[in-house]
Amino acid sequence: MIPDTFLNLSGERFHVIYKLTGDEATARAKADDICIEQTIEFPAELIGNDDIRGQIFGRVESLTRLDDAHFEAAISYAVETSGFELTQLLNVIFGNSSIKPGIRVERLELPDVLLQAFKGPRFGRDGLRDYLGVGQRPLLCTALKPMGLSAQALADYAFQFALGGIDMIKDDHGLADQSFAPFEARVAACAAAVARANAETGFNCIYVPNITAPANQILDKARFAKQASAGGLMIAPGLSGFDVMRQLADDDDIALPILSHPALQGSYVTSPDNGISHYALFGQLARLAGADGTIYPNYGGRFSFSRDECQSIVEGTAVAMHHLKPIFPAPGGGMSLDRVDDMRQFYGKDVIYLIGGGLHRQGGDLVENGRYFREMIYPLH
Amino acid sequence: MIPDTFLNLSGERFHVIYKLTGDEATARAKADDICIEQTIEFPAELIGNDDIRGQIFGRVESLTRLDDAHFEAAISYAVETSGFELTQLLNVIFGNSSIKPGIRVERLELPDVLLQAFKGPRFGRDGLRDYLGVGQRPLLCTALKPMGLSAQALADYAFQFALGGIDMIKDDHGLADQSFAPFEARVAACAAAVARANAETGFNCIYVPNITAPANQILDKARFAKQASAGGLMIAPGLSGFDVMRQLADDDDIALPILSHPALQGSYVTSPDNGISHYALFGQLARLAGADGTIYPNYGGRFSFSRDECQSIVEGTAVAMHHLKPIFPAPGGGMSLDRVDDMRQFYGKDVIYLIGGGLHRQGGDLVENGRYFREMIYPLH
Repeated sequence: MIPDTFLNLSGERFHVIYKLTGDEATARAKADDICIEQTIEFPAELIGNDDIRGQIFGRVESLTRLDDAHFEAAISYAVETSGFELTQLLNVIFGNSSIKPGIRVERLELPDVLLQAFKGPRFGRDGLRDYLGVGQRPLLCTALKPMGLSAQALADYAFQFALGGIDMIKDDHGLADQSFAPFEARVAACAAAVARANAETGFNCIYVPNITAPANQILDKARFAKQASAGGLMIAPGLSGFDVMRQLADDDDIALPILSHPALQGSYVTSPDNGISHYALFGQLARLAGADGTIYPNYGGRFSFSRDECQSIVEGTAVAMHHLKPIFPAPGGGMSLDRVDDMRQFYGKDVIYLIGGGLHRQGGDLVENGRYFREMIYPLH
Repeated sequence: MIPDTFLNLSGERFHVIYKLTGDEATARAKADDICIEQTIEFPAELIGNDDIRGQIFGRVESLTRLDDAHFEAAISYAVETSGFELTQLLNVIFGNSSIKPGIRVERLELPDVLLQAFKGPRFGRDGLRDYLGVGQRPLLCTALKPMGLSAQALADYAFQFALGGIDMIKDDHGLADQSFAPFEARVAACAAAVARANAETGFNCIYVPNITAPANQILDKARFAKQASAGGLMIAPGLSGFDVMRQLADDDDIALPILSHPALQGSYVTSPDNGISHYALFGQLARLAGADGTIYPNYGGRFSFSRDECQSIVEGTAVAMHHLKPIFPAPGGGMSLDRVDDMRQFYGKDVIYLIGGGLHRQGGDLVENGRYFREMIYPLH
């Protein structure tokens, strides 16, 4: 037996809503198992009637039938198990249980005392609108590509898109620090190109470099980007780690808006019975980790997200989470200009439209293509 | 059209073997799509007959039928697309394609010129044996838990396990920096307890704290652990990011053996048709990112990995990868002492046996339990 342990915990608990595959008995067993697996990971029979059992064990708060083969369990954990850190919070939410089939994280319900440990997005929707000087309309974003172009060729595109009035011109997430367009040369050239265009147009377009990089280089790259007058940063937390994005967002010297890219996160959402829901992953967690905009593949593009899944992401970007600011959904992934009408109805004004290759497909004059894109959006607002 | 671009690339390419779900036409279309999605992510028809098309595009090197519904595609990429960085290499391997269903990374074939960019495991199998002074036998590892115990109570367990002759005594991955056992107090107490036991026994047991932590604290925690005479480090790259582990492994001042924990990585392997194979994830990638031992749930425990999947991990820990040292498979997850015979046949000598709660189940005397475990292993060798 483990020695009896009495802890001075707050009694505050956070809730994770899991979808469990199986009949009621199976789901009940899975829920009970999660309570142990995500906390003590130890034979429960060796724990006495103490605070480890009473407080540290996860607790099944409810088990609700969804259909014959699926149940939804709300399991609560003492906030102290998270250590008030994002890495350990993720671990309690889904660390080991990610390895067991038929368990999916659907939603997080985090109490204020836990959310207060996180600054969340520095800008959020309102802050990013203020920063860009953009009122109540959708934001426009495009990506610099293809991989293989030189820093100068990418900067030329950045210049044209900025002339055309695109609000945010980001690196494609495949632009890292390759020999053909090294990070510093690219960032300096693209930021300067966008500044030059802004001086002509009076717009306030920003360049958003991809700073996904080796762990020991990310902060330096962010500082370099800031110094070079980049207006925002993009990072892929699936590649860098979620908490690296949180660290960037919290940095008062860097203090730039952050776009989160979904690279390597797809495996969390490809199965409806496993992983993490679109809502929790691209909505709640991106926000908890400090993104101001969360990029994901839109329905109807070359990826397979459904309208409902996209709708759930939108909800996750804005659901009440204490002081955490709502952030922008940024649907992309094979979008084209002829989709804008449909998307306008679906997303309303609080969205970043991300159109990459589609802007090139429209014709050879990128400035005109940018204007055309912009004019499809502005008149409404 | 994109301006013609001519690059001075080496012609060296790395290969990713993907399993694709679908009939031959579907698989062929998926393979062609991956070539674009993972590189230029851009309308291919706008690229001329230049080096972007000839070099940067992924290239389908082969497409092989596995069964009626699955094909295996070998796709090659220019080594330069990776920027010779782990984050961008992961991105080219599976960044966006992780978001598309029916694509699974099976194996990586990385040429020497790319592997030379990575130091890989500092110790590897032979180095860890030398470091621990352990000859050609399996290594024994246990975990300090349950969460909720004080630093002192955990240190008492560490002392007893070290007296019992367990080679590596690691934190449970749920021990972070919680109020009930704060990181520094725990690490100092456990490291001291293990040193005290070693002084009694003459063994060379090591304490391996969990340093998975907020991004801005990981290196400091590793340095604190080293200073406190911890003998190794455990980190969960699914929580911290893979490249953070690589950074730790490369740090010549820290220079401690590293155990990789699988928390939050399960979603990559839960589907046979999506994600990343056990072989590539827990074998090749853990190794590329500098782990000396790769923890994963053993077959027959409370997780669902099959014998074949575990066998494939073992293969990934030792397959030829230029200078990258072979590393130890560290199967755990609900192991118990009555499984050791079977595991001995399955794993042979090059394995770290990880038994956590099972050592407590054996009876109240943890020193004796440790000895019992040890004596099940030693006599063979």
